[in-house]
Amino acid sequence: MKFLNFTHTEGVRLGALINDTRIVDLTAAWPTKPAPQSVDELIAGQDIALAIAKELIEACGDALRNDGTQHTLAYSEVVVLPPVAAVGRNIFNVGRNYREHIIEGNLANGRPADAFPPAIEFFTKPRTALVGHRAKVLRHESLTNSLDYEVELAIVIGKGGRDIPAARAHEHIFGYTILNDVTARDLQRLHGQWFKGKSLDTSCPLGPVVVHASSIDDPDNLALELDVDGQQRQCDNTNSMIFNVATVIEQLSAGMTLLPGDVIATGTPKGVGFAQTPPKCLQVGQTMRARIQGIGELTNTVIA
Amino acid sequence: MKFLNFTHTEGVRLGALINDTRIVDLTAAWPTKPAPQSVDELIAGQDIALAIAKELIEACGDALRNDGTQHTLAYSEVVVLPPVAAVGRNIFNVGRNYREHIIEGNLANGRPADAFPPAIEFFTKPRTALVGHRAKVLRHESLTNSLDYEVELAIVIGKGGRDIPAARAHEHIFGYTILNDVTARDLQRLHGQWFKGKSLDTSCPLGPVVVHASSIDDPDNLALELDVDGQQRQCDNTNSMIFNVATVIEQLSAGMTLLPGDVIATGTPKGVGFAQTPPKCLQVGQTMRARIQGIGELTNTVIA
Repeated sequence: MKFLNFTHTEGVRLGALINDTRIVDLTAAWPTKPAPQSVDELIAGQDIALAIAKELIEACGDALRNDGTQHTLAYSEVVVLPPVAAVGRNIFNVGRNYREHIIEGNLANGRPADAFPPAIEFFTKPRTALVGHRAKVLRHESLTNSLDYEVELAIVIGKGGRDIPAARAHEHIFGYTILNDVTARDLQRLHGQWFKGKSLDTSCPLGPVVVHASSIDDPDNLALELDVDGQQRQCDNTNSMIFNVATVIEQLSAGMTLLPGDVIATGTPKGVGFAQTPPKCLQVGQTMRARIQGIGELTNTVIA
Repeated sequence: MKFLNFTHTEGVRLGALINDTRIVDLTAAWPTKPAPQSVDELIAGQDIALAIAKELIEACGDALRNDGTQHTLAYSEVVVLPPVAAVGRNIFNVGRNYREHIIEGNLANGRPADAFPPAIEFFTKPRTALVGHRAKVLRHESLTNSLDYEVELAIVIGKGGRDIPAARAHEHIFGYTILNDVTARDLQRLHGQWFKGKSLDTSCPLGPVVVHASSIDDPDNLALELDVDGQQRQCDNTNSMIFNVATVIEQLSAGMTLLPGDVIATGTPKGVGFAQTPPKCLQVGQTMRARIQGIGELTNTVIA
């Protein structure tokens, strides 16, 4: 099941993506009132809402196979919004987590190649930075000379909690999405802590969908890649993560309460622009296409 | 004018503190409906709401002088809540900003004493960590051996904006409050980025009041101090900040939209526990009392 927030002619609606081409308007099709109008409201509705959504998706899938189109729209014709709310607490992010990305960063920064972090490096991005699939990303030319991309698997929390052991982490996960952790490298370095370089408006493309956890066999074994104007830059698998999905939840929730709807990005693989020889920064007009196996494709173009 | 969120017998209410002893229940006294029920709602009401609040405070002040008590309560008898909402985006924080605190940190960590940051080190704390005046702070004994305190002047944003120049920063400030940036030093170091060590539940005492900007002559010249069980640990003045209030807003808002109700803590002066010889960490039963000139006193006791 792939859920998304979209808008077509009226307001924000909860949808489900079918066959990667059609959207079921779950808000319109919902049999009870009030209908959920976003992925966050679906998560808040817990198991009951999820069961209704599942039935609607199956019924619409059957109808589509019979050429029915009630409550469905073409994916290409709607505005896809970020699949979580624009207001709310910051997105949680994991720093260096992929073995070869750590090595490329260490070499680019003159550190020993094998200097791996002893624990997870957590930072945050504000939701003012969120943009959806097909939305534009600002180049921020007056502020940065080195805007960069980072494809990442992001966890969406379904059930809150504190001190969640890794063995029970899966009980707290609603699903997964794609996050492009757009970063101003010069600001990231200049300001010491990473927040400033990670927080610029439009620097957090997210989506297009949240895939329900039941549709992902193993989040720690998903191919992910990113290309810029069709040229592949990042290509790896989440099985290269030093700290896996369950460990990220365990370390983040230690002493700190997680809430339903929280988003946790899990770090990026090798191939970021700053570590290339010579470094390749994002330029106005370029299109980033981030893909993760089983989730889909998140596309964003850089504008002035 | 000193505003606060409090609860007495029914729900959260907006109050004003008079003579540091009485609270005017502004929600009850408000002449129009709907009445603001929190400082955030007062901020959202802009100049009109502020003018009404000012009139009510003046009228109640007159009534108190005549022994009237309508819509007033004893400050000692109410539950003081954090003066901003528990939901919403993270608190913004400034790292090393006081000259002598930077030196004490550099010496404690074996760095050159005069290694000052070239730009502001921004990080965040989640609102799940917020607690109010007189609320308890968890020791988190199973997670940290070095819980520490940090008294800080915090800015509350009234009017949002992006790319705010320092010269116009004052137009965006609603007021000021006190933030105690409770920090698990071992986690702060172990996790590289500071977020984890700064994010534990109850690690963000805030309040007791937001003092309106019109009541503070110069935010860059306020005495601030913190004592633990009556023993003074920190004592300095905001005029020791390397980056002043206006500069903090300019650098944070560069390329990143600030919103009404945002809270920005501005860093802590010398005297933190980890830099003392020997280091003095917070223990169960100890009481922290943070004070800032013109704002008041924020008191919190550590529990297991």
